[in-house]
Amino acid sequence: MSSPLLEALLCLQSLQDLPRTGWIQRGIADPESIAGHVLGTCELILALGPRVQPPLDTDRALALALVHDAPEALLGDLPRTASELLPAGAKRTAEERAAKRVLGPLSDLALERFQEHARGETREARFARVCDRLQLGVRLLGYRRAGRAGLEEFEQTLRELDCGEFAPARALQAELLAELGATA
Amino acid sequence: MSSPLLEALLCLQSLQDLPRTGWIQRGIADPESIAGHVLGTCELILALGPRVQPPLDTDRALALALVHDAPEALLGDLPRTASELLPAGAKRTAEERAAKRVLGPLSDLALERFQEHARGETREARFARVCDRLQLGVRLLGYRRAGRAGLEEFEQTLRELDCGEFAPARALQAELLAELGATA
Amino acid sequence: MSSPLLEALLCLQSLQDLPRTGWIQRGIADPESIAGHVLGTCELILALGPRVQPPLDTDRALALALVHDAPEALLGDLPRTASELLPAGAKRTAEERAAKRVLGPLSDLALERFQEHARGETREARFARVCDRLQLGVRLLGYRRAGRAGLEEFEQTLRELDCGEFAPARALQAELLAELGATA
Amino acid sequence: MSSPLLEALLCLQSLQDLPRTGWIQRGIADPESIAGHVLGTCELILALGPRVQPPLDTDRALALALVHDAPEALLGDLPRTASELLPAGAKRTAEERAAKRVLGPLSDLALERFQEHARGETREARFARVCDRLQLGVRLLGYRRAGRAGLEEFEQTLRELDCGEFAPARALQAELLAELGATA
Amino acid sequence: MSSPLLEALLCLQSLQDLPRTGWIQRGIADPESIAGHVLGTCELILALGPRVQPPLDTDRALALALVHDAPEALLGDLPRTASELLPAGAKRTAEERAAKRVLGPLSDLALERFQEHARGETREARFARVCDRLQLGVRLLGYRRAGRAGLEEFEQTLRELDCGEFAPARALQAELLAELGATA
Amino acid sequence: MSSPLLEALLCLQSLQDLPRTGWIQRGIADPESIAGHVLGTCELILALGPRVQPPLDTDRALALALVHDAPEALLGDLPRTASELLPAGAKRTAEERAAKRVLGPLSDLALERFQEHARGETREARFARVCDRLQLGVRLLGYRRAGRAGLEEFEQTLRELDCGEFAPARALQAELLAELGATA
Repeated sequence: MSSPLLEALLCLQSLQDLPRTGWIQRGIADPESIAGHVLGTCELILALGPRVQPPLDTDRALALALVHDAPEALLGDLPRTASELLPAGAKRTAEERAAKRVLGPLSDLALERFQEHARGETREARFARVCDRLQLGVRLLGYRRAGRAGLEEFEQTLRELDCGEFAPARALQAELLAELGATA
Repeated sequence: MSSPLLEALLCLQSLQDLPRTGWIQRGIADPESIAGHVLGTCELILALGPRVQPPLDTDRALALALVHDAPEALLGDLPRTASELLPAGAKRTAEERAAKRVLGPLSDLALERFQEHARGETREARFARVCDRLQLGVRLLGYRRAGRAGLEEFEQTLRELDCGEFAPARALQAELLAELGATA
Repeated sequence: MSSPLLEALLCLQSLQDLPRTGWIQRGIADPESIAGHVLGTCELILALGPRVQPPLDTDRALALALVHDAPEALLGDLPRTASELLPAGAKRTAEERAAKRVLGPLSDLALERFQEHARGETREARFARVCDRLQLGVRLLGYRRAGRAGLEEFEQTLRELDCGEFAPARALQAELLAELGATA
Repeated sequence: MSSPLLEALLCLQSLQDLPRTGWIQRGIADPESIAGHVLGTCELILALGPRVQPPLDTDRALALALVHDAPEALLGDLPRTASELLPAGAKRTAEERAAKRVLGPLSDLALERFQEHARGETREARFARVCDRLQLGVRLLGYRRAGRAGLEEFEQTLRELDCGEFAPARALQAELLAELGATA
Repeated sequence: MSSPLLEALLCLQSLQDLPRTGWIQRGIADPESIAGHVLGTCELILALGPRVQPPLDTDRALALALVHDAPEALLGDLPRTASELLPAGAKRTAEERAAKRVLGPLSDLALERFQEHARGETREARFARVCDRLQLGVRLLGYRRAGRAGLEEFEQTLRELDCGEFAPARALQAELLAELGATA
Repeated sequence: MSSPLLEALLCLQSLQDLPRTGWIQRGIADPESIAGHVLGTCELILALGPRVQPPLDTDRALALALVHDAPEALLGDLPRTASELLPAGAKRTAEERAAKRVLGPLSDLALERFQEHARGETREARFARVCDRLQLGVRLLGYRRAGRAGLEEFEQTLRELDCGEFAPARALQAELLAELGATA
């Protein structure tokens, strides 16, 4: 039996192979993995973070995004329809438990970053969460330009996204919606 | 907007593309789909059903197995670790709601078969549930013979399976365990 | 060497991984598997069976559909072009031989269900065969909505399908053709 | 409607996506495509052809190998079990018809090369056929070294292969069998 | 340790699994492999070679095409953007070195064919190179008819292709551009 | 034409689909993507960073790792054999150019992080580079436990890795080598 640290690292490898359920539900048979989504979110943070005023800690925001989907290594990728059908609070509870199991053995820092993200109280956490949702829009545009269709629901989700206090995120959201309109 | 029936049929197509999470968690990057698992379960019922004494209704048992994973079209494939981490009863509640949404529009019969399976009160339901678990053993043996490793956890699950009142299931379980031992 | 029953079950696992050739021929590189097609056919039976008048045995019709493509575990998925190019009767002969080899070891029932389906003399058999063809239409609509194109040949096949004595099948056929028209 | 030449070229693209059925039947879910097999066969011809005594026309042997599986674009990849279960001569008949349809529109040369291969009367044709079978051995060794198992049947096929008049093919066959023995 | 010949053959198997990077860059997640591209190029040579005036040696042209991408087994598939970003001549140097390592152990003939292709001095070599580029057009049309989009860059590349001295290649190029126009 | 920022984000999506060439070369047909590798590297940094003495800036180290493979969106994944065969310095030059094109439009910060990583002068950069190499060992252990074989070369690479000034990295390296020994 290897160390808890090594076991946790091996457990997290399933994020490389788990596809994002929501895309499969809309007919994209072999979509991005959870790992792909996480990297895409981080790229958004790298792009938009330095443009945010007043300045925020982009490096820490990256760390928040990096861990935010770690629980899915134990839970699978729960699509929006699952969140709606599970009893209120059930997903949140399971994610907290899962984070303790897969991130705890990495380091206290890993778990702290997860909890900061989950609570959403700092600007960095709120920013990471906006970028998490915005990544869906970038991925959607990629699929649409590549000829995929039937994804109106995701476009609607993007339209309804509240980018809140982050002007650069609002600007990208607007550009994404304009580009999506142009591919329709 | 097409009919609820057609929308439900299209929704169920994601069972063809959703991989079984548990295998991914143990390093099989591109495992059987949920559809593959359902078909495998039905083949077991076709094989063992006619051998069960006293006789049971094999055709109805097939129908029970066919619908038992339909909720996963809305929930994704929840692995065992998810069941453990979700609050007690949450998965069951979500499955019942999901079944109403995806099976209800098909027919009353489809939903009745799901509920009979979920309640597990009839012999056919208990038999379908045993075959559901036994399919894991057949799939495991297939992977092991093909050179896959690191699946001891599934072997343990198979060993602990209570095949209850169904002697032909117990016989196959014993053969599977013997064959798995021979590949180790 | 394990039992003929277990060998047959392992042999049938290739239905999970064999893609449907016809879709590949029209540019869908990674299409539904045979297992996916079988499950889709059964879902149609569950949906339409209870609506048929006079009533038929939906559970038995499911069993018929479940075994109808089992020979492909030994033959591969023969596309329509193969049926046309093989000598008359060759495919049928091969399927009968293959069914004996893969279904015989399961149970007499499995083989009987296959033969009932192949002969097409009972209403349940004719109904299962109509649903087998109709599944192609549902899958086609799924692909079209997802942005796939170049599938006119399949649309033509659906248009020419004779749903015969089953009014609910005719109704779904009509809806599918209307929806396909709307995506063109 | 485009020219018969272009339609034939497009039709042949399915060789890129059609997996070799035989490997799937033995548990390799995502095996080499027909195109991969054809290229592998040609590499063998390039390697062994110049070593054959008396000299043969290696370039023409390549052309023979390149077209030999073209009919599978219309027939799918018929595994050995299909050949055994189809009536005698049925596969050969279908292949000839298919070759006319997919190779005829390319050029007379393409069809001639196919027919020379099928008749097996020239040394180049016999050599191309030996390399076709030998490629199975190279691919098998690749899979075995990568940890795949359960492929004894293919090893037996390789052992029984009669490399006939081609000493360099016999030498490689011997080396392959020795290497396979070393991985067992 | 097996012979250099066998090691080279095993090394070349990665051409079966390496996807063509350029398509991935434009949103086709699971595109043709290098092996698929090579086979497609050879089919073009088989089709157009016999139509070229004055006659050329089609069989030898096939051999040239067969080896032209062999270095990618060691280099990976370098997309056009890589060629532009690498220092001048770097790719060519690496390909020559790689060809010696993977083709040298096959036979002198294999390496000679590669070098003839790379120098592009014979008519057969120039013809093989034109067909290499033209295959991109056929593959592009296949993707476009199947509903893929966002591939304008490839269409532009096809438009700019100089088919030079080979009239049948120019004719196919024209037909491809016309067909692509019709799918837009 | 959308903004340079959005174009760069879309360009980076190919990191989700580009497989790591080195694994394909050793027989793993469908290995981790570049995105998967990047996420795995970051998880190592999250785990080991807080254990390093004297303390380093783990968040910044994450940012360094996140961008280090961004050039591969334009270059493809160059395996070790490519680095050896390209002229000295060619890969480095191409990566710098590529980084400017794909990271520049994101933000100055993104490009600075890349350059800090490439120069390797800060402790954070050296640590990120060690974790980049160490991820190969974790992934290797995952594959080996899952039954994959033929990966001795990667084990050798791990053995030769100089973890330098970072004791927690050396400890994990030792554990990985011990575990790999146990699976042999």
